[in-house]
Amino acid sequence: MNEWKNNLRKIEPYVPGEQSKDKDIVKINANENPYPPSPAAIKALKEFNADSLRFYPPADATPLKAAIAEYYGVKVENVFLGNGSDDVIALSFQAFFNSKKPIAYPDITYSFYPVWCDLLSIPYKTYPLGADFRINVDNYKEENGGVIIPNPNAPTSLGEGEEFVRRLMDYNADSVVIIDEAYVDFGGKSSVPLTKEYENLLVTGTFSKSRSLAGMRIGFAIGSKALISVLEAVKNSYNSYTVDSLSIAMGIASIKDDTYFKATVAKIIATRERVTNELRELGFTVFDSQANFIFTTHEKFRAEEIFNYLKERKVFVRYFRIPAIENYLRISIGTDEEMNAFLKELKGYIKEKK
Amino acid sequence: MNEWKNNLRKIEPYVPGEQSKDKDIVKINANENPYPPSPAAIKALKEFNADSLRFYPPADATPLKAAIAEYYGVKVENVFLGNGSDDVIALSFQAFFNSKKPIAYPDITYSFYPVWCDLLSIPYKTYPLGADFRINVDNYKEENGGVIIPNPNAPTSLGEGEEFVRRLMDYNADSVVIIDEAYVDFGGKSSVPLTKEYENLLVTGTFSKSRSLAGMRIGFAIGSKALISVLEAVKNSYNSYTVDSLSIAMGIASIKDDTYFKATVAKIIATRERVTNELRELGFTVFDSQANFIFTTHEKFRAEEIFNYLKERKVFVRYFRIPAIENYLRISIGTDEEMNAFLKELKGYIKEKK
Repeated sequence: MNEWKNNLRKIEPYVPGEQSKDKDIVKINANENPYPPSPAAIKALKEFNADSLRFYPPADATPLKAAIAEYYGVKVENVFLGNGSDDVIALSFQAFFNSKKPIAYPDITYSFYPVWCDLLSIPYKTYPLGADFRINVDNYKEENGGVIIPNPNAPTSLGEGEEFVRRLMDYNADSVVIIDEAYVDFGGKSSVPLTKEYENLLVTGTFSKSRSLAGMRIGFAIGSKALISVLEAVKNSYNSYTVDSLSIAMGIASIKDDTYFKATVAKIIATRERVTNELRELGFTVFDSQANFIFTTHEKFRAEEIFNYLKERKVFVRYFRIPAIENYLRISIGTDEEMNAFLKELKGYIKEKK
Repeated sequence: MNEWKNNLRKIEPYVPGEQSKDKDIVKINANENPYPPSPAAIKALKEFNADSLRFYPPADATPLKAAIAEYYGVKVENVFLGNGSDDVIALSFQAFFNSKKPIAYPDITYSFYPVWCDLLSIPYKTYPLGADFRINVDNYKEENGGVIIPNPNAPTSLGEGEEFVRRLMDYNADSVVIIDEAYVDFGGKSSVPLTKEYENLLVTGTFSKSRSLAGMRIGFAIGSKALISVLEAVKNSYNSYTVDSLSIAMGIASIKDDTYFKATVAKIIATRERVTNELRELGFTVFDSQANFIFTTHEKFRAEEIFNYLKERKVFVRYFRIPAIENYLRISIGTDEEMNAFLKELKGYIKEKK
């Protein structure tokens, strides 16, 4: 009796980050885009033939794949689509990481990698970042069952160039290497062109950050036909219709509106540079970010104390209770007004401490 | 060199059913609803604050869970949401079917069950339907690692009552039992009330059929807190945000519009009964359907020949190349006009054969 309880999956529930619904707060804790989606994407939404939602979406979401392929200069067969890049990466782990050897990634990085490894019973080994918080590519010479590197990395905000990726690929001719480019559009160097040279390189991306469509769940991967076809086979054995019809329509309109995209990204970068300078003037160490967030520390103030002080004043930034970065804050780039509100409260904190 | 190719997942690609984009065709092959979504759901779409799509959806999609809980008279903690019921069932397999014993289901049923078992390395055993194509509940007395039964079953269209489910639960106190109710709203008997009695019973449902929202990917499960909490933990270790913001908004509006829902379902049932009678007059054997499709055979005509004849005339029905049902057709219930077009071509076929 009740033996079924023994067969329930034992798993530590992953707790997603805090998402306050309070309209008054300055929400710069989830790396969301402070600007709305492209007007063209909103138009696609408003003009969508809602009656047609009674039909299943196209199973392979080809129209959106074609738009992404055109944007990146690859073929449709090189593009994979999923329900956000989390879905794409989770399916990639299942598709590519079937070795008994551990997969390799940095110790300070996207917190979901070990969660997927645990869920999918994939062994893993993490490599420490350098003292400068950069990834040491030579660590990834060691034999492994696969590699995943975010570029830029999170929460450090630091990006690596083509030379880094080429060395990584040279060391790993026997592994599938995933470069997770969730933040690349904010000044990073995309490795998509390298997928034409390296058949074992998969690059993942998302419409959630630079395209302001976090609410619509659109992720993608670009790689060789050898990789994409396996990814498709795994996905089609799991859920044929992961990207819904409205996401397809809005995604196409978004990627075709390059003018809005470039303007929005430029605004965020300009705000980031200004805030970086102001923080440095206040004595903060701020890394040279290539992302839509900054990673910062102050030798005189405790990050956790600043986090709590700001939270009480309705400014939500991100603090990680992880030893190596326990005195750092990750601050998403909001509008100039939001960042001014953040800086004002921060200056209030510093004044109180003096 | 190229050892990575050895670690690619070896999997037979699942090929989804044919989805023609031709506007002229009578598409009664995918069990889609011939009527549009509720006007309230369409209004929710048109009035949605698209700027807010820059935010991630609520990770637990609570507002939609609450609406579903209210509709079914259960608590929010008894409701799970996923990206279509395929996502819900795939996660349920991972959450509940971790025994070494095979899970049990009928041999003629939803074709995705063995696909998920293969993907997730879950052993399974199928039990043949009776000569009348009904499920023999006594088969499921045998020790197993879990049970999944669609009610009504597909493609047979036959539903089972409360007594069947109670016996199934009595036989399976040691297993999690999933009742897949994708088609239940078209005249079947829902087992949701029984989830309050049986802690090991999970009922899954979808907004794709009776609520005309196949394009938005909304699936759900209802069960005890013991089951739902494990399902949540697995899902949160896979992808925190599976149901997008627009699906949440449209789903809520849809489930609150019970008048439209009841009217639409009643129309489909009326059309189904009429078409069933007409087919019987033409000499077809038609099962008493509790779904939005009918399953039929004719002793004088080959199902495959009818399928091809209709297809040439742009009427798409579903034919399965499976020995036990190789002389049967599954015909989704469309509008009266669509069904008249189908019947006209079918009569043309019969006339030619005489």
